[in-house]
Amino acid sequence: MTTTDTPTVDNGVNVAALLAAREALTAAPEAARFQWRARTEWIDGTYSRTTVQDFSGLGAEHTHRQAFVIDADQPEVFASEDRGATPVEIVLGALAACLTTGVASVATNRGVKLRSVTATVEGDMDLQGILGIDPDVRNGFSGVRVRYEIDADAPRAEIEAIVAQSQKRSAVFDLLTNPTNVTVDVA
Amino acid sequence: MTTTDTPTVDNGVNVAALLAAREALTAAPEAARFQWRARTEWIDGTYSRTTVQDFSGLGAEHTHRQAFVIDADQPEVFASEDRGATPVEIVLGALAACLTTGVASVATNRGVKLRSVTATVEGDMDLQGILGIDPDVRNGFSGVRVRYEIDADAPRAEIEAIVAQSQKRSAVFDLLTNPTNVTVDVA
Repeated sequence: MTTTDTPTVDNGVNVAALLAAREALTAAPEAARFQWRARTEWIDGTYSRTTVQDFSGLGAEHTHRQAFVIDADQPEVFASEDRGATPVEIVLGALAACLTTGVASVATNRGVKLRSVTATVEGDMDLQGILGIDPDVRNGFSGVRVRYEIDADAPRAEIEAIVAQSQKRSAVFDLLTNPTNVTVDVA
Repeated sequence: MTTTDTPTVDNGVNVAALLAAREALTAAPEAARFQWRARTEWIDGTYSRTTVQDFSGLGAEHTHRQAFVIDADQPEVFASEDRGATPVEIVLGALAACLTTGVASVATNRGVKLRSVTATVEGDMDLQGILGIDPDVRNGFSGVRVRYEIDADAPRAEIEAIVAQSQKRSAVFDLLTNPTNVTVDVA
């Protein structure tokens, strides 16, 4: 009988490399310390441009293959010019992107071939918070819902288990559901 | 003596409209209920594409002037192809974008002309969390730091007060520093 370490399906995720990284970082935990960065420039009004270019980890500095740019703005209903998504919409997208990466990785690790994965995300927000109308209303979302449509070679129970495992290991899901210490200062 | 309701400086923010909206929503709080949305499609491997197009609020459905697209991926050090920023970098950018919109709005409301505003954001993450190596390490950031460089017609103390007020009213700052209920399910 022949055994193999490589997954039997290809979703484009290199699971063998991820498992090797896990083993390497278990042996050298200081290499697991990463620092992610972004730089945001105000352009005009509510409009800003964020650039993501470098990060550190595995004991070294790294540069992305290219700089990634994300514009943010406010819509016309707020008397703005709608030159980008709002920051809260961008957060919803990051949540779904993080969970979706997890779905692809977990599915591959479990030998499940994916045909299509789509997530729709909704976040409810009462603007009485950010406008300072009611001090009992928070600035952020009162609740967020992510719904997946997944077409894959697996029974529904297995697809649900894949989504649940992705949620368990998602950085952005953790960031939204648990508090993080954030400091803001002026140089 | 003549008084005027319009701010004496122009940073491109329509503060008069924002103050009018605040007054209108104080009188009709149900119109303050917004729902923000995003839709994420898995493309291949760890690569996904998020589209932001419509939202509801002020008792109606709205469509952005154009669909905004954000690609997300993982870098080559994780055996991926680096076709977009990582979801956690996108969250850092959304935080800085949200705070920067606030800085421009608060500065305008206080009559402070901005010349330039730049935020650099760093988020520390120990990958032993998302890789499942150490159950005591969280998946998200252990801490986030935002640092502003602001060139404006105002003393340092006033600039610091503007940044502090922006933080107090920031939706994304609230989302990161306080927990939100997030549900994830399969359609």
